[in-house]
Amino acid sequence: MSALKVAIIGATGYGGLELIRFLHNHPEVEKMDLFTSSEEGVIFSSKYGHLLNIQDVPLQKIDYETLENYDVVFTSTPSGVTSKLLPPLVGKGPKLIDLSGDYRLKNLQDYEKWYKKDPAPQEIVDQSVYGLTEWNEKNIKEAVLIANPGCYPTAALLSILPFIKEGLIDPSFLVIDAKSGVSGAGNKPSRTTHFSETNENFSIYKINEHQHIPEIEQAIEMFTGVKTAITFNTHLVPMTRGILATSYAPVKDGVTTEDLTECLMETYKRHPFVRVITDANTIGTSRVKGSNYCDVFAKIDERTNRATIVSVIDNLVKGAAGQAIQNMNVQFGLPQTTGLDVVPLFI
Amino acid sequence: MSALKVAIIGATGYGGLELIRFLHNHPEVEKMDLFTSSEEGVIFSSKYGHLLNIQDVPLQKIDYETLENYDVVFTSTPSGVTSKLLPPLVGKGPKLIDLSGDYRLKNLQDYEKWYKKDPAPQEIVDQSVYGLTEWNEKNIKEAVLIANPGCYPTAALLSILPFIKEGLIDPSFLVIDAKSGVSGAGNKPSRTTHFSETNENFSIYKINEHQHIPEIEQAIEMFTGVKTAITFNTHLVPMTRGILATSYAPVKDGVTTEDLTECLMETYKRHPFVRVITDANTIGTSRVKGSNYCDVFAKIDERTNRATIVSVIDNLVKGAAGQAIQNMNVQFGLPQTTGLDVVPLFI
Amino acid sequence: MSALKVAIIGATGYGGLELIRFLHNHPEVEKMDLFTSSEEGVIFSSKYGHLLNIQDVPLQKIDYETLENYDVVFTSTPSGVTSKLLPPLVGKGPKLIDLSGDYRLKNLQDYEKWYKKDPAPQEIVDQSVYGLTEWNEKNIKEAVLIANPGCYPTAALLSILPFIKEGLIDPSFLVIDAKSGVSGAGNKPSRTTHFSETNENFSIYKINEHQHIPEIEQAIEMFTGVKTAITFNTHLVPMTRGILATSYAPVKDGVTTEDLTECLMETYKRHPFVRVITDANTIGTSRVKGSNYCDVFAKIDERTNRATIVSVIDNLVKGAAGQAIQNMNVQFGLPQTTGLDVVPLFI
Amino acid sequence: MSALKVAIIGATGYGGLELIRFLHNHPEVEKMDLFTSSEEGVIFSSKYGHLLNIQDVPLQKIDYETLENYDVVFTSTPSGVTSKLLPPLVGKGPKLIDLSGDYRLKNLQDYEKWYKKDPAPQEIVDQSVYGLTEWNEKNIKEAVLIANPGCYPTAALLSILPFIKEGLIDPSFLVIDAKSGVSGAGNKPSRTTHFSETNENFSIYKINEHQHIPEIEQAIEMFTGVKTAITFNTHLVPMTRGILATSYAPVKDGVTTEDLTECLMETYKRHPFVRVITDANTIGTSRVKGSNYCDVFAKIDERTNRATIVSVIDNLVKGAAGQAIQNMNVQFGLPQTTGLDVVPLFI
Repeated sequence: MSALKVAIIGATGYGGLELIRFLHNHPEVEKMDLFTSSEEGVIFSSKYGHLLNIQDVPLQKIDYETLENYDVVFTSTPSGVTSKLLPPLVGKGPKLIDLSGDYRLKNLQDYEKWYKKDPAPQEIVDQSVYGLTEWNEKNIKEAVLIANPGCYPTAALLSILPFIKEGLIDPSFLVIDAKSGVSGAGNKPSRTTHFSETNENFSIYKINEHQHIPEIEQAIEMFTGVKTAITFNTHLVPMTRGILATSYAPVKDGVTTEDLTECLMETYKRHPFVRVITDANTIGTSRVKGSNYCDVFAKIDERTNRATIVSVIDNLVKGAAGQAIQNMNVQFGLPQTTGLDVVPLFI
Repeated sequence: MSALKVAIIGATGYGGLELIRFLHNHPEVEKMDLFTSSEEGVIFSSKYGHLLNIQDVPLQKIDYETLENYDVVFTSTPSGVTSKLLPPLVGKGPKLIDLSGDYRLKNLQDYEKWYKKDPAPQEIVDQSVYGLTEWNEKNIKEAVLIANPGCYPTAALLSILPFIKEGLIDPSFLVIDAKSGVSGAGNKPSRTTHFSETNENFSIYKINEHQHIPEIEQAIEMFTGVKTAITFNTHLVPMTRGILATSYAPVKDGVTTEDLTECLMETYKRHPFVRVITDANTIGTSRVKGSNYCDVFAKIDERTNRATIVSVIDNLVKGAAGQAIQNMNVQFGLPQTTGLDVVPLFI
Repeated sequence: MSALKVAIIGATGYGGLELIRFLHNHPEVEKMDLFTSSEEGVIFSSKYGHLLNIQDVPLQKIDYETLENYDVVFTSTPSGVTSKLLPPLVGKGPKLIDLSGDYRLKNLQDYEKWYKKDPAPQEIVDQSVYGLTEWNEKNIKEAVLIANPGCYPTAALLSILPFIKEGLIDPSFLVIDAKSGVSGAGNKPSRTTHFSETNENFSIYKINEHQHIPEIEQAIEMFTGVKTAITFNTHLVPMTRGILATSYAPVKDGVTTEDLTECLMETYKRHPFVRVITDANTIGTSRVKGSNYCDVFAKIDERTNRATIVSVIDNLVKGAAGQAIQNMNVQFGLPQTTGLDVVPLFI
Repeated sequence: MSALKVAIIGATGYGGLELIRFLHNHPEVEKMDLFTSSEEGVIFSSKYGHLLNIQDVPLQKIDYETLENYDVVFTSTPSGVTSKLLPPLVGKGPKLIDLSGDYRLKNLQDYEKWYKKDPAPQEIVDQSVYGLTEWNEKNIKEAVLIANPGCYPTAALLSILPFIKEGLIDPSFLVIDAKSGVSGAGNKPSRTTHFSETNENFSIYKINEHQHIPEIEQAIEMFTGVKTAITFNTHLVPMTRGILATSYAPVKDGVTTEDLTECLMETYKRHPFVRVITDANTIGTSRVKGSNYCDVFAKIDERTNRATIVSVIDNLVKGAAGQAIQNMNVQFGLPQTTGLDVVPLFI
């Protein structure tokens, strides 16, 4: 019998807002409190007017003793924060679900290289479980600390892992061209997110240098045993929500589009949040807007014998808060869809 | 004990999509079927990919005998359809909630003048109840046929009715300048809704000729007894959802901004979906996006002794499907928030 | 014979970028240099990549002796800068065209009240000429210092002045409801201009408190002799460029829509940049995008005997840099359209 | 000495609008007339209000005798029109510049396969010259009929041709992932371009089936002698203008990022409209908005030894009308920049 007490650290970010949005309707959550390192006492709805009459509570100071009394602590902070913040809480009671990148990379040198920050302690990182729900359910169930996947890795991995695992594509030449809405950049104003310069502008950024590259490669190895170096690039789309990842790889001889579709169907048949698209005419991010779905598609270009693999997610939901709650559901033995069974907005 | 059977006619429009989105999570709805006049047999999710695995059912042919077995029939069709479609169903069992404009205007000559279509039969129009929930709850409870309010009238009326009723403003010079996202224009492609010409373009349309003018004037008289002619204009905002209405009127001598705020607070204190804003810095349509809230605000310009009155709604929710479900809840004795208690998306 | 040397101070703002865009193609400008207070030596195209191979020059330090050698100095800085910067340059040779608000308000107390900053010296303000080209051509021709109008005042005044001057409307109840694209907020990142919170959000701001209110009232009195207090509000549209102003006022008895149209036609018949719209179906900001046009329209609502008056401009062109160059043309005896005769982009 | 008479067929499309925008300011064009197959007599500015006072002329009926008197005839029609329309005009006097796809593919079977329409006569197609200005200047100079390149091919080819020609990349595994604003879909309303479903939606379309695939492959062979099959996909970005193409290919051993940059610099050193970007932080479509520039960039991912190659254009300018005028300039011995030397709008 669950009646969960949930704490959110970093509620003022967009990941935090989405946690609040879904947990508000989660039937097994009886208490949700918001914690902050810098804005103690601020009434949350004075900062985010859309929460008027919904979250008129003051932000609380982060305090370990208090936090130990919660069943779950979600951390939704920029990278470099939870590496220091979480270690004292590990094993003290609450399930910890970290939405930042601090506990994803098992190799700390990779973390230092790609994040250019000090890593979390190795022994804590070793305990963390990568929270790609559909591929790691058993480990998530037992995990004390979940490293919730990045938005881009979630979109890319859910669509390519089945083919690598089944040996249908050649992972040695894998190109992932990803595109994201601007909310992925967070709520901190900068020139990159300044409306007049972002609107009506499609741009590429961090060329070949995005920190999600090692995360994707690690996950490929973790779930398929294949070690490979990928080409991965990220683009900024002038819209708020959504990621579409287009991946390219040579297919093995004789593999057909039907084989790819069948492989996706088989892989995800028991997984409510991954939907296999068969109609190529309707593949866009709006299919999943506001929801926890990841929709996947694959097709072979027979002229070149390469597969075009496509997936879409809402970066703030399946790519962040939604998957985090999905993982919480797994940890507490709830149906994965609990509190997450919403219809995409579409428009 | 409710366990409602619900039919939707006109599900393929945007109002219909929102009905589906909310009714999917409505705890008292046990059955929801979709009806169509022109696309019988079409699998709904083949038309709207975001509903894959959610509404993979064929659209059913409209048939009166079948429809009589539902507890509620929502009609979400263009104007001029339900005037002919609904009369045979009136009194045959189901509660009828019409989202079109066909049953709103009591004076059929007004309907003909502003809609330029043949009106519904007078005796049916006479039975219809105007579904502005917060102002007509008692009548809605008993109604067989509800004329769900238009999107603009909902936004405008909820913010100005309190002041007219309490005599705080002078209704003889009332200007309502309204702005709407493009979804209000429906799902039929046209030059007005063509992306390249709508995007990055703010425009005014139907100058002084919008069919919501007589609806607003009728409602003012209905709920306050005041007969007045308003100036009302509508603009198209390059965004999908949301209406913001800015209204202007002289205030009576001695009336203060505090009086206006107090009047709003008092009027809506028991109404969960109307929120009174006191922080003028956060008034935009994103406050209510995807939700059934209407947020209202008023302030006096002391230089001119005129009030600036502002309200925001999601035109597809409180301005259409959300209010329709709110009315259904009232009709069946459910809490108004049943199935509608969602947090606005904000971004 | 002109061959103008032009200096721009504040080139890194959006007004400055538009000055560069138009002056680049101005046939009478032989030299254009960019000055800065804080970024001396920075190669301009390294800051704004779109100017690669076009403006690969370093920003120069502001220096009075140097500036005296230019024919024109445009200042496009935030308010509160040129009040201090320009006085030593007045009368030293160059024509000064200030795009900020520092020299617009003749009454310094108004400046202090609405801008909340220290005003420029009264004797300099006294010499400044308000640069609403179509209404002040003679004075502009002789001016040493031009106070280029604000974006909202330009849009509003060009559409309402003719009617006030000719006594067709009653200025004692004049409501101006204005809407602007986000570029009007400048290039400094803030929460108000943060893409994720600005996109898909239509908002109202500075309710009854915008600093353009006294500017509009002063100009009404200056050009028509009428003293009146207006109601003026401003909204933020999720698009980059464009202002649409909708104004409302009672019309005098017997005045018709044709009278209004005729008044506009007559007023602007020799003015190439003000176009009178007669087709009410195409009134949006895209009509003038990227150009120096102001398109105006008026229509009477016969139910209420009030006029609806509409105008559209590109806030960065006719509302800033374009009008500034138009004023320069007037000062140097060039045709007003020199360098400004471009076709609007529309899409 | 030129003083060109120019005819435009298909002026009502977006390509046509851009031809008008640039030709309006072209110093060597003394006459520009607009022709139509279906809207004879329609005043052009009544259709496109932004051209009020600029193009208040009636559209003329297409008539071969009349057309023969022009120096240049631009055709900007959907594919399948000029294949029939242009043959009688070939060799009759005017230079013909066709913006459609009807004369691009030399192999008529390719045209039939990819366009699913009847091709133009082989002998006319044989005479046509592919108008990728920077790569085909000599032939363009002599051409009677120019097949103006497609928008995607222009963006892709300008960035990848130098590397294939110089043997720096391996063309046997070339992936081009292209993204376009919605204006590329033209001005005909459809569900794909319906604002509410296009806005806030990033989508992929025509997966592996875009008709620009054979055009790109043909041009690679034409300009480098290399026969290869490419993987090419297209995405729709919720913005109006702009294409960004991201291409991926293995580099030859020992090739460095500096080699790639140097190759681009060398290739385009005499070409004013192709700019080589060296600052990877500013690569977006807004760099070139409204202008004829194509900005290119390349970088090697040393982890995988693959190149990431990026280019941006304004699809309506360098991808259509701008390049067409650039070709006209070449044909008439004018500097390529004549009438096209405008600063990008950026915002």
